[in-house]
Amino acid sequence: MAFDISRRFLLTGSAGAAVAGLTACATSSAGSAVAQGAFTPENASVENPYLLGAPEGVALLSRNENPYGPAQSAKDMIAYAASKGAYYTSGEATMMLKEMIAERHGVTPDHVALSTGSGEILSAIALHYGPNGPIVAPRLFWDTTALYASNLGMAEISRVPLTAGMEIDLPAMESMVTESTGLVQLCNPNNPTGLVLPGDVIRPAVARMAAKTTVVVDEAYIELANDEEGTTCIPLIKEGHDVIVTRTFSKIYGMAGIRMGYLIAKPETAQKIQSVVMSWTPSTSIAAAIGSYNDMDFINFSKGKIVEAREMVTTTLDALGLEYLPSQTNFVYFKSGKEANAVQEAMASRMISVRGQYMDYNEWTRVSMGFIEDVDRFCKALPEVLA
Amino acid sequence: MAFDISRRFLLTGSAGAAVAGLTACATSSAGSAVAQGAFTPENASVENPYLLGAPEGVALLSRNENPYGPAQSAKDMIAYAASKGAYYTSGEATMMLKEMIAERHGVTPDHVALSTGSGEILSAIALHYGPNGPIVAPRLFWDTTALYASNLGMAEISRVPLTAGMEIDLPAMESMVTESTGLVQLCNPNNPTGLVLPGDVIRPAVARMAAKTTVVVDEAYIELANDEEGTTCIPLIKEGHDVIVTRTFSKIYGMAGIRMGYLIAKPETAQKIQSVVMSWTPSTSIAAAIGSYNDMDFINFSKGKIVEAREMVTTTLDALGLEYLPSQTNFVYFKSGKEANAVQEAMASRMISVRGQYMDYNEWTRVSMGFIEDVDRFCKALPEVLA
Repeated sequence: MAFDISRRFLLTGSAGAAVAGLTACATSSAGSAVAQGAFTPENASVENPYLLGAPEGVALLSRNENPYGPAQSAKDMIAYAASKGAYYTSGEATMMLKEMIAERHGVTPDHVALSTGSGEILSAIALHYGPNGPIVAPRLFWDTTALYASNLGMAEISRVPLTAGMEIDLPAMESMVTESTGLVQLCNPNNPTGLVLPGDVIRPAVARMAAKTTVVVDEAYIELANDEEGTTCIPLIKEGHDVIVTRTFSKIYGMAGIRMGYLIAKPETAQKIQSVVMSWTPSTSIAAAIGSYNDMDFINFSKGKIVEAREMVTTTLDALGLEYLPSQTNFVYFKSGKEANAVQEAMASRMISVRGQYMDYNEWTRVSMGFIEDVDRFCKALPEVLA
Repeated sequence: MAFDISRRFLLTGSAGAAVAGLTACATSSAGSAVAQGAFTPENASVENPYLLGAPEGVALLSRNENPYGPAQSAKDMIAYAASKGAYYTSGEATMMLKEMIAERHGVTPDHVALSTGSGEILSAIALHYGPNGPIVAPRLFWDTTALYASNLGMAEISRVPLTAGMEIDLPAMESMVTESTGLVQLCNPNNPTGLVLPGDVIRPAVARMAAKTTVVVDEAYIELANDEEGTTCIPLIKEGHDVIVTRTFSKIYGMAGIRMGYLIAKPETAQKIQSVVMSWTPSTSIAAAIGSYNDMDFINFSKGKIVEAREMVTTTLDALGLEYLPSQTNFVYFKSGKEANAVQEAMASRMISVRGQYMDYNEWTRVSMGFIEDVDRFCKALPEVLA
């Protein structure tokens, strides 16, 4: 694959860019493959093994994916679902997944709503609550879904500055929240900081805010937190608070391309948001989730790889004397002391993909974990890049 | 599988019911499978081969599916996408599919928007145009997506009576359309009637209505029309009219569970509606579409099976002297002379699933094509059921 193609990927290969790319990449290389008839009925297997995933030779460390996924248990179920792909997703499969989710979290299945990735259900939440008043959120969070509603004129985002330590400033958020707030949105662990608000800090604050409006906590990375059970806000839902927790199969489960997400909430909330969700989730996605949801061997394997990679990164950062935030996710946000976009460019020239600048955090870089050998390349390149 | 489970399926197994079933089937049999640990990491392949698709022994002729799908070319690409499932769908794959679609229809890729099934993009269209004024549509059409927006308070549906022959009454629709109409929605071929408005009839009427408001034509079944090229409204888009055409992989492609749909429209319309689409379409769905879109062997095979089945049904109806509408789809709408719900019950008792009553059309039954042997069972059962 020519470097100019990889280069575009290296600099725009974030999830957001991939979506924006739906309309943007009119000069894609794909046209030639079509012209060559790469996908004929006689030879329908993929001609370009890099059509999905990282281009050849690229260390993909920019999108918080888990390249060790999907689990074999997920792939087996996808093959089954493909063989039954002629049929609309069954109520039985949907209910089976809801029951598995409900069982783990100690709720009944009517507390669960499903969507094609948690991005969709977060977008549905933003669309539903946005017209009621501003979405109060930390200055830095995964804002893609709030922006979805905002871009449609259905929501306004009110961002609350972080603390000096780049933590979510819960007291400041609480002081902003009134009964005319449309929604409070938190991401815990947060993205791109990787920081966790512990349960004994976040839960009382969320409970107080939920007395005034609905609070959604995006827990996309919580399976990677040191104390998942002690951190999640799901107990607040069981106590009857007006709280929604969202989860995803894109991170620890390594299924970002398969798209499966869910929420836990009061039954009436779950039902309402389910009616706002726009897509019917593919049977392949639901089947993959059924196959791997309780695959603890895979989950533990993935978590082990992520922790190993994170320690490689922090050891490197320590050796270089660089500041970083203590991550409980599959990425690390660190202060390189150089312009983030220049760091991204320099990494790209070494076929390593990291994130560019967030907002005005011009000296901070987010690096995702990935294959151990790719993280190793990053660790070896970093001293050169910052030299 | 116990008959009581099949019975519920037989009477509610429509696509709409399956979706409603997301919250409704709390007494599902699935719980026991979970309790039995059917999906352990060690044994993740499906324990119940009927989790998706028709329950054992059921002739599934109620949901307009094509059980001969997906094509092997689609399944091969799903397996590839599953192996790369860790990664967010690439812009390259998305663009490749758009280019394939654009090439077939003689437009540029910026005329194409993609969604997780055409239901999603039709819902996005209803959500976008609904607030501008009523959605003018025939009394009978595939109204699920207009109802999505209507149920959210974002649209109002204005239904125009059919002609005495149950055709879409285009002159009556035209007389309803003004510049304060939000959207005109047509389904051609129509569902559940199976009737086609020929190109020389629909195109001039759509062009005139599109001078006043946006017109969407749902062409989910058009690959099954006798003269696809002469029937489609895509030429109107090329002429610059304010027209949207939607297509799906759920019908001729046999991928209702995989969920892939698209629209063709003016670039600014395609871009706008893409921004309303809520889900990010799974890589498995996009890959399946890439694999099979130009698989003419499969398409011709499927069309052959559907035409063969349709002739079996109409021969049976002729022999019984029953009225039916001349279908150019994979279903036949016929006047049994008996209560539609009683016909459905009687068929269910024979493990055959057909649709129940539509609106007040109490003596009309819709039967979908399917496996030839299942259609044969229907044909043999019909005289008994109506005796």
